[in-house]
Amino acid sequence: MPKIALLPGDGIGPEVTYAAVDVLKAADQAFGLGLEFEAFPFGGNAIDAHGEPFPEVTQRGCLEADAILLGAIGGPKWDNVPRHLRAETGLLALRKAHGLFANLRPAKVLPGLEHLSPLKPEIARGVDVLVIRELTGGIYFGEPRGMSEAEGWNTERYSKPEVERIARVAFEAARKRRNQVCSVDKANVLEVGEFWRKTVDEVHRYYPDVALEHQYVDAMAMHLITRPSRFDVVVTGNIFGDILSDLASVLPGSLGLLPSASLGEKTPLFEPVHGSAPDIAGKGIANPTAAILSAAMLLTHALNRSDIAKRVENAVTAALSANPTPDLGGKASTQDFTRQVIEALDRVAA
Amino acid sequence: MPKIALLPGDGIGPEVTYAAVDVLKAADQAFGLGLEFEAFPFGGNAIDAHGEPFPEVTQRGCLEADAILLGAIGGPKWDNVPRHLRAETGLLALRKAHGLFANLRPAKVLPGLEHLSPLKPEIARGVDVLVIRELTGGIYFGEPRGMSEAEGWNTERYSKPEVERIARVAFEAARKRRNQVCSVDKANVLEVGEFWRKTVDEVHRYYPDVALEHQYVDAMAMHLITRPSRFDVVVTGNIFGDILSDLASVLPGSLGLLPSASLGEKTPLFEPVHGSAPDIAGKGIANPTAAILSAAMLLTHALNRSDIAKRVENAVTAALSANPTPDLGGKASTQDFTRQVIEALDRVAA
Ligand SMILES: [Mg+2]
Ligand SMILES: [Mg+2]
Repeated sequence: MPKIALLPGDGIGPEVTYAAVDVLKAADQAFGLGLEFEAFPFGGNAIDAHGEPFPEVTQRGCLEADAILLGAIGGPKWDNVPRHLRAETGLLALRKAHGLFANLRPAKVLPGLEHLSPLKPEIARGVDVLVIRELTGGIYFGEPRGMSEAEGWNTERYSKPEVERIARVAFEAARKRRNQVCSVDKANVLEVGEFWRKTVDEVHRYYPDVALEHQYVDAMAMHLITRPSRFDVVVTGNIFGDILSDLASVLPGSLGLLPSASLGEKTPLFEPVHGSAPDIAGKGIANPTAAILSAAMLLTHALNRSDIAKRVENAVTAALSANPTPDLGGKASTQDFTRQVIEALDRVAA
Repeated sequence: MPKIALLPGDGIGPEVTYAAVDVLKAADQAFGLGLEFEAFPFGGNAIDAHGEPFPEVTQRGCLEADAILLGAIGGPKWDNVPRHLRAETGLLALRKAHGLFANLRPAKVLPGLEHLSPLKPEIARGVDVLVIRELTGGIYFGEPRGMSEAEGWNTERYSKPEVERIARVAFEAARKRRNQVCSVDKANVLEVGEFWRKTVDEVHRYYPDVALEHQYVDAMAMHLITRPSRFDVVVTGNIFGDILSDLASVLPGSLGLLPSASLGEKTPLFEPVHGSAPDIAGKGIANPTAAILSAAMLLTHALNRSDIAKRVENAVTAALSANPTPDLGGKASTQDFTRQVIEALDRVAA
C-alpha cells in the first residue's frame, strides 16, 4: 500500500494538491494501486499551527511515506518572519532531510498548445525535454568561497560519487522515456567539466541501451531554442542546470503547466514549479495542471508506473484542448478542469 | 588619419572583408574620415607564407593601427598542424597582445527579417541587444583548478579592477545606444556575484545618465527568450557571457548577420561571428553582412562615429530587404549586395 504524504501548503497549494489527489484516486480506482494519503502541515500554515514551517509531525510523516506531493508554500503573511522560520527554509530542510540531489524539470509543449510558446509553432511542436539538475553540489556549495575588498571567489567542484549518482538518475529516467541522454558541461575549458564528462561516460557503460551525447553549455542554450524537440533527457550540474532548466521552462509558454520531481536518498518529492499565488487563492480558478502532472511524475518515479502516468498526461492534454482554466483563456474552474481530466482518464482507461 | 589593419584571413574571409572595406571607403568619401587601410597575413595564409599564424609583420601592423578588421580564419588545410601553429592560436595571441578583455556581441533582429528568428515575430520584433562578455577572467582562467581520480575543480574569481573596467565598457557602450545596462550575476547564491554586483554599482556612480538594473543569470536566460526587446546593453562575466551571448545570437535567426567587437588595452578588433566557410569560399556568394556590420562597430567603438555606423546599419537593412545573398533566400552575389549597401548609404548620406 504506497503511502503518499500530502503537503498542500499555502495559497492555491491546497486547491491544486487536492485536484491532483482526485486524479490519483481515479487512477487508483481504475488500476488498483492501493494508494494511502495523509496530509501534513507545511510552510506558512505550519508556522501558524506549530510555530515552525517543517514541524516534527510532518518530518515523521514524510520519512514514513513512499512519496511526497507538495502544493505550494509561502505568501505575504509570512514574509517578515525570521529567516529560520520562513516557509522557504522549510523547503530547504525537507530537501536536505531526504537527500534530494536530483531535480527533474520536464518541459513539454502539449499538442494543441504550441501557440502558447514564445517559439514559432513549427519549432515548439513536439518539444518534450526533461532537464535533470544536480541540486546539492557544484559552485553553489563548493569551498573555498568568499569575498574581500579586492575580490570575490567561488569553487565549482564535483566528486565522483556526486556525478555517478546523478548520471544514474538520468539514465534511469531515459529508460522510462525515449532512451536518450544529453550530458551538458564545459569540458573544453574546465577541468571539472572534463571530470564530469569522463564520469558520465563510465556510468554509461552500465546503460548500453541508452544513447548518450555530450554538449557544451553554450551550444546547449542555443539548441534549446533552435531545435528543442530533438532532446529527451538533459543532465547537468547545479549552476548549468539552474540556467538550462529555467530556459527550458519558458518553452511551453505558461508556468502553470510545469511539474517537477526531486529524487535522492529517501522519499522523493513532487511539486508544481509555480508558487502559491495568494492573489487568486480560494477563488476556485487556479490551474491544477502542474500539480496533476507532478502526480503523474510521482506515478513514474515513485511507483514505477509510467504506463499510468502516460494516461494521466494524455487526459490532461485532452482537458486542456477542451476547456482550460482562465489563465489559459478557458472558462473551467479548478474543479471543472479536474473533472474533465478524470473523465478523459476513464475514457482512455476503458 | 585613422589606420585600419586588415586581416582578411582564410576561406570567405577576404571576400567579406573587402566588401566591408568597400563600404568603409564609401563612408569615407561621404563623410571625410581619411581612413588608411593596410592588409596583413594572419591565420592559415600566414602559416603558408611565414610558417606561423601571427607573424611579426602582422604583430607590428596591428600595434600601429587604430583598429583591426578581421575576416575569418582557418580551414581543413590547417587542421592538422601542431597546436602552437594553429590558426586559432593566432587569434588567442592577437587577443592577448592587445589586452582585449571585453567581447561585444550585438544581436539585432533587423526590420523585415523577423521571420528568420526562432521566436514568434511579435516577440522577435525590435530586438536590439548588445551582450558584453568579460573575456580574460572568471572561471575559465581562475586558480586553483585541476582534476584528480576523485574530483574536478575550477575557481570563479573576479577582482575589483577586472569588474570595474568591463563595467566601464558597458556604460560607455550604453551611452552610444539607449542608455540602459543590465548586469547579470548570481549574487543571491555566489559571493563572486555579490562582489560583481557591488562593484558594478560603484562604477555606476560615474554614469548617472545610464539606467542600471541587475538580473540573475537564470532569470536572464528566460528574459532573453520571453521579452528580449526590452534589453539594451547586457554585461556579465566570462562563463555567463559565453552562454548568454550564444543564446542571444540565435535571435536574429542567421549566423551570417552577426558582427562582434573586442575592446581592451590596445587596438580594438572587429570581426564577424561566423567562420571561414571553406565550402563556399571563392564562389562570390558569401554574405558580407556580418563583416559590414563589424565595420559599423569599428566606426562606433574605434572612431567614435556612431552617427555614420547608424547609417551603415540602415543601408544594410535596406539591402537585406531588397535582395539578400542566397543564404537568406536572395539572389545577390557578395558584390551585388555590397553595391546595394553602398547605394543605400549614398542615399541616406545625401
Ligand atoms: Mg533558477
Ligand atoms: Mg560560446
